[in-house]
Amino acid sequence: MLLCDVGNTSYDFLDNVRHFKENVISFDPRTIKQKVYYICVNPKVKKILTSLDNWIDLASYIDMSPYYETMGIDRIVACEYVQNGVIVDAGSAITVDVVKDGSFVGGYIYPGVKAMQKSYANISKALEYEFNYELNLDIIPKNSQDAISYGYLKLLHLEVTSHKMDIILTGGDAKRLASIFPQAKIEEELLFHSMNKIIKKARLC
Amino acid sequence: MLLCDVGNTSYDFLDNVRHFKENVISFDPRTIKQKVYYICVNPKVKKILTSLDNWIDLASYIDMSPYYETMGIDRIVACEYVQNGVIVDAGSAITVDVVKDGSFVGGYIYPGVKAMQKSYANISKALEYEFNYELNLDIIPKNSQDAISYGYLKLLHLEVTSHKMDIILTGGDAKRLASIFPQAKIEEELLFHSMNKIIKKARLC
Repeated sequence: MLLCDVGNTSYDFLDNVRHFKENVISFDPRTIKQKVYYICVNPKVKKILTSLDNWIDLASYIDMSPYYETMGIDRIVACEYVQNGVIVDAGSAITVDVVKDGSFVGGYIYPGVKAMQKSYANISKALEYEFNYELNLDIIPKNSQDAISYGYLKLLHLEVTSHKMDIILTGGDAKRLASIFPQAKIEEELLFHSMNKIIKKARLC
Repeated sequence: MLLCDVGNTSYDFLDNVRHFKENVISFDPRTIKQKVYYICVNPKVKKILTSLDNWIDLASYIDMSPYYETMGIDRIVACEYVQNGVIVDAGSAITVDVVKDGSFVGGYIYPGVKAMQKSYANISKALEYEFNYELNLDIIPKNSQDAISYGYLKLLHLEVTSHKMDIILTGGDAKRLASIFPQAKIEEELLFHSMNKIIKKARLC
């Protein structure tokens, strides 16, 4: 049995404990013959996967009524795993979702690290900096690198901590954001944990 | 006498009470024969202007010691006019500067409306929305348009209001942001007011 989280750019597989990634453009999912439980935010790939008998879409085993129609399945699956907390999933976008007593309260979307850096650089060459993750968030900056770092990181930090709940960091940039959320729990495997929970609950294996 | 604020894309003139704009690429500043007091954030244009006798750079009449070296002259001039407050200048970037008792405390930079909308759209077609400025900032969203609007606007709102000071809105998108800062004072002519103050203080005319 394989687990697979399909994003916009890659297939992210978990084979018991081994992780591996495949590129969305070059990889042919028909080459996999064993059973794959997957979630998929990529509409093009989803079309192919639904035609394959051994690829089982876990979305159909989730009660979708607490969520909204256009909400990404990755966000939904993350929320399904958490009882109380703010889930910060830092990928190409940063999604922030709040779950209280096992119920989805709401969520929002913020540009991911790369997207935001590009956004600043496109405004002006003078704003082309890497973010400073060691920034002191309590001091309003007096230099350009910190001025964009604060604009990106402090604003996110203020909102996320305003809920006064546990913070769960996941996604490819979880470790980068850990320095501004020292109190957060890093759960890089959050989606796979949740997929396993859904499989068990639905008695799929 | 003319006042001129040169940005990355345009010359913004004030002739007593009349406003007019000229494109940075197509406009030749040599065609103006009267005295022009200007500020300029555009390095290419600045090179030309310093060679013209009737164009007077107001930057040389400001005490720069409270500010930092790479800080835009437009931000500095805005700070020079304010005694106490948070200045939100919403242009291609949104700059936020805090002034207390006439002293610059610090500031930061956030992408402007267009840049941020483009940033979301580049991440995914599914995030290609106009921002909803009528959004209720007290409710965590449950739909895609509000999820990106909250990500952009609420995060800015939280930081700006956290200073518990007067808010001064300026720049081309000041009116758009007014709905999320109903308590703010809109000062579209802030830079020109400040330039006049600097001219008077330096007894230039």
